[in-house]
Amino acid sequence: MNGQQKVATVIVAAGSSQRMGGVDKVLALLGGKPILARAVDTFQKCNPIDQIVVVANKQSLEQCQQLVASYGWSKVTDVCVGGKQRQDSVAAGLNCLRDSEWVVIHDGARPLVTEELIYRGLAEARETGAAVAAVPVTDTIKLVGDDNIVKETMPRHRLQAAQTPQVFRRDIITSAYREIIKNVTDDASLVERLGVRVKLYPGSYDNIKITTPRDLALAEMLLGYEG
Amino acid sequence: MNGQQKVATVIVAAGSSQRMGGVDKVLALLGGKPILARAVDTFQKCNPIDQIVVVANKQSLEQCQQLVASYGWSKVTDVCVGGKQRQDSVAAGLNCLRDSEWVVIHDGARPLVTEELIYRGLAEARETGAAVAAVPVTDTIKLVGDDNIVKETMPRHRLQAAQTPQVFRRDIITSAYREIIKNVTDDASLVERLGVRVKLYPGSYDNIKITTPRDLALAEMLLGYEG
Repeated sequence: MNGQQKVATVIVAAGSSQRMGGVDKVLALLGGKPILARAVDTFQKCNPIDQIVVVANKQSLEQCQQLVASYGWSKVTDVCVGGKQRQDSVAAGLNCLRDSEWVVIHDGARPLVTEELIYRGLAEARETGAAVAAVPVTDTIKLVGDDNIVKETMPRHRLQAAQTPQVFRRDIITSAYREIIKNVTDDASLVERLGVRVKLYPGSYDNIKITTPRDLALAEMLLGYEG
Repeated sequence: MNGQQKVATVIVAAGSSQRMGGVDKVLALLGGKPILARAVDTFQKCNPIDQIVVVANKQSLEQCQQLVASYGWSKVTDVCVGGKQRQDSVAAGLNCLRDSEWVVIHDGARPLVTEELIYRGLAEARETGAAVAAVPVTDTIKLVGDDNIVKETMPRHRLQAAQTPQVFRRDIITSAYREIIKNVTDDASLVERLGVRVKLYPGSYDNIKITTPRDLALAEMLLGYEG
């Protein structure tokens, strides 16, 4: 970044995979290749990336280490163990960073990320120090109470669905992680609480997160999809 | 409904299909059968439904009429022409209603609707007079300003994505439609403005709306999907 500034990536692959029927989803094959390997490969190929940290869960640590060894990715410096919540895993990954000024956080379960999405994020983050891939919401979104009665229909043109990559200046994301808050579904929301302006940039509808067997089938389709 | 009360359905199939490359999406084949025919078939088979009104766009009116004639659905009383906006089309459909006390509004582009979803909606609507199929939002949703800077991360556990069927007591939906407001993406939001309590009930992730060729491929997959 900017020629000299170094960029590290934390790839979070420590989810419980509850909705994949017990199989560790990031190790499931997508077009004959583990989901996680597809994500790591794209970051390995992406020139501005200097370091890659993979965060695995305890049960899959050995398999993830073997995967890294077998692919021989030169940028992967660590395969560390994550925590119970997603944010514990990200925090574990951040602890493995070397001398980078920028950090890209990515879900290991988003195998269809492209180099273009990473480049865009790096470019957009320069302005505010925080940039998040996102796509316009196409559904009508309703805010409900406990009784499932609609409180409000949200203004759709103002809504975006966050994805990863999420790119942060390192000092910003490490500050945000000093105070870990429960139930955080994305890293940017911690940064927002610091008062940092978080910029959304165009992600891709193909950059899906694989959570269920159906998502996996959809990803297989997208890999072969000519459209 | 309640034995005696009559139920009509307005199936809205008057979209411009801009994102389907000019082909009228509701006439596109899904598993060898037009998308619209799948939706109408399910309502035809559903016992509590007494009347079905299909709203087509001007260009496809004749084809829709031919479709109705060829399938011989006994409950379809009208194939009428819709308007420029979705709400104009719904209003046109409501004008064709006979003596029903309840109205189910459904997108013609949601061919995977099931009888169960219709039954559930009819049951839920009894309480408040308005019930909408919806599914929990799985993405992290951000509210943004014009500059694409995040204003707020929405509380995900409070968010639901509305679908159709949407079931209304007839007097409620006709009152709501007396004042048509621009840019309404679903009928329930008009009803909410009246102060009526709108109840959300569990829809289905399979009950997708077909807007792009990719959605069509996904629907093909779901039709054959064993999971």
